[in-house]
Amino acid sequence: MSSHLTPSIAELHQLFVDFLYQQTWHGNPQSLYEPQMYMMQLGGKRIRPILCLAGAICAGLAPEAVLKEALALEVFHNFTLVHDDLMDAAPLRRGAETVHIKWNPSTAILSGDTMLVRAIEILADGSTVEAIRVLCRMAKEVCEGQQFDMEFEAGAPPSTKEYLQMIELKTGALLGAALQIGAMKSGNLNPSSINELVDFGRAVGVAFQLQDDYLDTFGAADAVGKLIGGDILAGKKTYPFLMALEALGQEEGENFNNVYGSNNADKIATVMAVFDGLGIKSSFEEMLEKRLADLTLALSHLEIQPEGKTVLREIMASLSGRKF
Amino acid sequence: MSSHLTPSIAELHQLFVDFLYQQTWHGNPQSLYEPQMYMMQLGGKRIRPILCLAGAICAGLAPEAVLKEALALEVFHNFTLVHDDLMDAAPLRRGAETVHIKWNPSTAILSGDTMLVRAIEILADGSTVEAIRVLCRMAKEVCEGQQFDMEFEAGAPPSTKEYLQMIELKTGALLGAALQIGAMKSGNLNPSSINELVDFGRAVGVAFQLQDDYLDTFGAADAVGKLIGGDILAGKKTYPFLMALEALGQEEGENFNNVYGSNNADKIATVMAVFDGLGIKSSFEEMLEKRLADLTLALSHLEIQPEGKTVLREIMASLSGRKF
Repeated sequence: MSSHLTPSIAELHQLFVDFLYQQTWHGNPQSLYEPQMYMMQLGGKRIRPILCLAGAICAGLAPEAVLKEALALEVFHNFTLVHDDLMDAAPLRRGAETVHIKWNPSTAILSGDTMLVRAIEILADGSTVEAIRVLCRMAKEVCEGQQFDMEFEAGAPPSTKEYLQMIELKTGALLGAALQIGAMKSGNLNPSSINELVDFGRAVGVAFQLQDDYLDTFGAADAVGKLIGGDILAGKKTYPFLMALEALGQEEGENFNNVYGSNNADKIATVMAVFDGLGIKSSFEEMLEKRLADLTLALSHLEIQPEGKTVLREIMASLSGRKF
Repeated sequence: MSSHLTPSIAELHQLFVDFLYQQTWHGNPQSLYEPQMYMMQLGGKRIRPILCLAGAICAGLAPEAVLKEALALEVFHNFTLVHDDLMDAAPLRRGAETVHIKWNPSTAILSGDTMLVRAIEILADGSTVEAIRVLCRMAKEVCEGQQFDMEFEAGAPPSTKEYLQMIELKTGALLGAALQIGAMKSGNLNPSSINELVDFGRAVGVAFQLQDDYLDTFGAADAVGKLIGGDILAGKKTYPFLMALEALGQEEGENFNNVYGSNNADKIATVMAVFDGLGIKSSFEEMLEKRLADLTLALSHLEIQPEGKTVLREIMASLSGRKF
């Protein structure tokens, strides 16, 4: 990679994946280590390690300097996937069997635990205690977000505000920490610039989780590559559903909640009709546009290296499918 | 506590518990943090934090100087209890409901994860990266030990050698790391003295796990406060069972393995008769005596402060019910 040009996301992805595939995941008993290698090689967008590399560029450091940190973040992310899949009883992850299915629930718990430990161990080998502290604070937020998510799914629907807080913890915190851990290594950025970068990363996480909700409900099937309305069918308390609940009165809201949570396979049309009547699609689009515009503005104001802004702009474009 | 006298274990216990009860365990959502407080207040011998305080004394440091490290080790230990209880489907822990029963399995997974993170966070607040590295290395060993244990219980019986390796990972590693993390803070001990201390701690863990096995099979009911033969009834592959298997030939061994693993409630007498015929009780006692004698010798040779030896001697006595 040329040091004179800002690397593309594809180049950062390649840089990380090359590093990742140099790692060994062996150990005894094999049944504890094989699931780790399995998860790490399932693929994915590698957005968290790429954000970590981007963080280094924002702070005037070559991305190669934070490859270990990027690896720690991806290992951490995969720990959360293994445990979340078990808690959610999900059979598939990226089209392949989840660890608790391919092996068993106990192996999913223990290999997940080991991945969490390994993420910290990777940081402890070359980074500062401060980076470990950032990871720990973020890890607690991610656990809190997952616990809120499970409580929301099992109990009464949250307000849209509570939902936004939940996805900031569950998704945003890790993206913010990835940028932070990448950016803090050079020591070139002052704390307030790093804080703004972290806030930006968290807001990116929230925006793109909301976009996922949008696409599942209002997207075109071929664009997302999965069934549209899957969230409605599963009765998942997504943002459009919570917007509709807040727009409806108490009694209508309760009726709608019952329909939405029912096992009736025909409910998608009913739910979509309620969304149409309330104009949920257009208010959601408006809200998303506003968030993306805010992010573009925040990005332009960040006190970071211009190469960093270029990379972050490309990351936003790749996540949203639009130009920034 | 007077700084001129070597503290007793009771004093170290009190010192730790006073510190523990000053900690707060609040956070949102409550359902994620309540199980942590619940576990930390269930009581227990607090042997791991006491060993950490003892480690400081071994290195010429006041035990007060490593209270945070001791807390990190106890929080880590309780993380392992929450996840192990879930994996073992244990309904009770110290006479109280386990977390996955009192709350639910997902809460046990997540609150356990959060405790592991908190243990590291406590170390990251005041200790060196080296202490975090020691904890991570140990944590992987504990996970490996638990995975071996589950594999042994689900599959063919291990050899006595494999069993010893498993309990060193599952129980010994944490005791060794507790002494190490306590001892390394002062910087007074050289690496080889610390290594000998770690080996001593690991051997203590193995000896007292073996003693547990012994008491469950050959102890007097009133001395242990639990049903004798519980391990036999559960078909648990303890050390006496594995000794018997190795003493029997292939065919007799298979028959014995079948009886031992059967659901027959009357099997205790049959199993005990086999143990009697093979002299398992006396060979086990001989082996335990040898281990305790080796530990006494190793302790006398440790290059540590004499106050440290006094404390370690008292810890061994309290664990074994004898004088050292």
